[in-house]
Amino acid sequence: MTKRLGARTLALERKPAVRAWASAVGEKEGAGPLGRGFDLVSDDPYFGQPSWEKAETAMLRDCLRRCLEKAGGPEPDCLLGGDLLNQCISSAFSVKDSGLPYLGLYGACSTMAEGLALAALLADSGAVDTALAFTGSHFCTAERQYRFPLEYGGQRTPTSQWTVTGSGAVLLGAGGKLRITHVTLGRIVDAGLTDVGNMGAAMAPAAYDTITAHFRDTDRDFSDYDAVFTGDLGAIGHDILQDLLQRDGLSPGLRYLDCGCLIYDLKTQDVHAGGSGCGCSAAVLCGHILPAMERGVWKRVLFAGTGALLSPLSTQQGCSIPGICHAVAIEREGRV
Amino acid sequence: MTKRLGARTLALERKPAVRAWASAVGEKEGAGPLGRGFDLVSDDPYFGQPSWEKAETAMLRDCLRRCLEKAGGPEPDCLLGGDLLNQCISSAFSVKDSGLPYLGLYGACSTMAEGLALAALLADSGAVDTALAFTGSHFCTAERQYRFPLEYGGQRTPTSQWTVTGSGAVLLGAGGKLRITHVTLGRIVDAGLTDVGNMGAAMAPAAYDTITAHFRDTDRDFSDYDAVFTGDLGAIGHDILQDLLQRDGLSPGLRYLDCGCLIYDLKTQDVHAGGSGCGCSAAVLCGHILPAMERGVWKRVLFAGTGALLSPLSTQQGCSIPGICHAVAIEREGRV
Repeated sequence: MTKRLGARTLALERKPAVRAWASAVGEKEGAGPLGRGFDLVSDDPYFGQPSWEKAETAMLRDCLRRCLEKAGGPEPDCLLGGDLLNQCISSAFSVKDSGLPYLGLYGACSTMAEGLALAALLADSGAVDTALAFTGSHFCTAERQYRFPLEYGGQRTPTSQWTVTGSGAVLLGAGGKLRITHVTLGRIVDAGLTDVGNMGAAMAPAAYDTITAHFRDTDRDFSDYDAVFTGDLGAIGHDILQDLLQRDGLSPGLRYLDCGCLIYDLKTQDVHAGGSGCGCSAAVLCGHILPAMERGVWKRVLFAGTGALLSPLSTQQGCSIPGICHAVAIEREGRV
Repeated sequence: MTKRLGARTLALERKPAVRAWASAVGEKEGAGPLGRGFDLVSDDPYFGQPSWEKAETAMLRDCLRRCLEKAGGPEPDCLLGGDLLNQCISSAFSVKDSGLPYLGLYGACSTMAEGLALAALLADSGAVDTALAFTGSHFCTAERQYRFPLEYGGQRTPTSQWTVTGSGAVLLGAGGKLRITHVTLGRIVDAGLTDVGNMGAAMAPAAYDTITAHFRDTDRDFSDYDAVFTGDLGAIGHDILQDLLQRDGLSPGLRYLDCGCLIYDLKTQDVHAGGSGCGCSAAVLCGHILPAMERGVWKRVLFAGTGALLSPLSTQQGCSIPGICHAVAIEREGRV
């Protein structure tokens, strides 16, 4: 049975295992520092489809198929997914012919962490034997929907981030060295920021809130983790979070990393403040973090997915940009 | 511990109790046959706000506050919610200042059932003591986003439905006569329909799929329930589902009801095929079904929320309208 620790953390008794994972990304992500870790790097941004939205759907479908093939077992009892598109169409359309139970999520860029957290809680309780969490994003769908169609040639501010064309899928169940040990549920934190060209700053306070809640609830700190990853704060959000932590006397040192800073070479790939989007933390989790844990590079990791809960319309109506962050602790069992 | 029954149904061992519920609706819903059951009927469609989206947010916030006040207990451990707006802004903004853990969902009009199902599973496992599921919709936000701004005076086809201005919130926990006994998770069913003016027909096959799966898994049929409610199939979807069931030899008779047919007077309120939207099943659940169960009108009810997983863009790109349906069985304990 799941045990509650402190205000917001849940300790998983069965510690559901990560049975399989997969990732599919675009060309730019493949050319980045983590490029060799992804299962599919597509040199076709359309993924063989006639529209960007259908491309995103096809990428998700490919990613899911690879994850299920790697697992090799019976079909999962439940799929949990979502994306950034209006009404989450790419995730719904990617699984619509699977015949599998589906729970649609909306956590913006925190969707991978939210899905992983819920999948782990369902598996821990025995409600399901296996559950698959997935998400993704596409640069071209996000630009069209949140900013401008690509054809407009809109200019980007230096604080802006680049939406990752990428996806990740993780199957939880029994049997595997990598185990989900804790889940810390996020609450919405609204620092009142309104600059849609600086999402990292808008999300950093939520990451701070959840990571420190996790530490309080588990009586742990950075020294208990080999690495703590935020989802997509980018270079600016990364530095803000580091400042917030240091004010509390927490010294993450080199243990704190951000998926948005890792997926691209920020100096040469013209992405300004780094990567973002549901696909950012999902692809880094499945193309970098989990493979490295399996190889024994890290034994204990905190994966803290971050999301900005805005829409173009909320911005047009003068609303702030609230952030959220869900965290999942992953541990490698046994000796390397 | 949660026990699996058949392919898709989960039997809840603790049977989480419905501790409190609340509903808030607009004037048209208040003038309908169920009008007297709602906690708030607002004669101001703006709910005191300067935009339709902020009105929807304010309605949800009011509904949540009423539910928490009725429960009177400690704050819930977790909120689960979503809505129809792009990036689900009304649910996120309605809870952003609550300081409570929040899991964002996207289940289109099935959100109330999806949230209730997940809240029940989390409460059954001990992951949370209390969890609150909520959702809502607003006619004017939905028209603007999915169809045309109201000012255009767009004409409606006879098969179309009227998006309910309404909301519902349900708090699950311990202590209460009404208990959640089973959850049947929905899978996406795509019958290939493309008429956005006839959502009831698009969703009916998903309702059929989930209700029959529930009956198979639990070895029950219509005679085991005092009433089976679909979310928002409306008059046309209701008749299609009835036809599909009768082909299987299932005779629902008067036990099968649809929230979209109940919330308005279909003859006099000019809503064409009935009500729809996240708020339809949520408001009917909280303003009619749960109060009637408490009074002893029904002892055992199946609440089958239905959703159409489309967006204006998926329609523009020629995609079909996939449907989904999640079902939750609610039972009244003890004698009336």
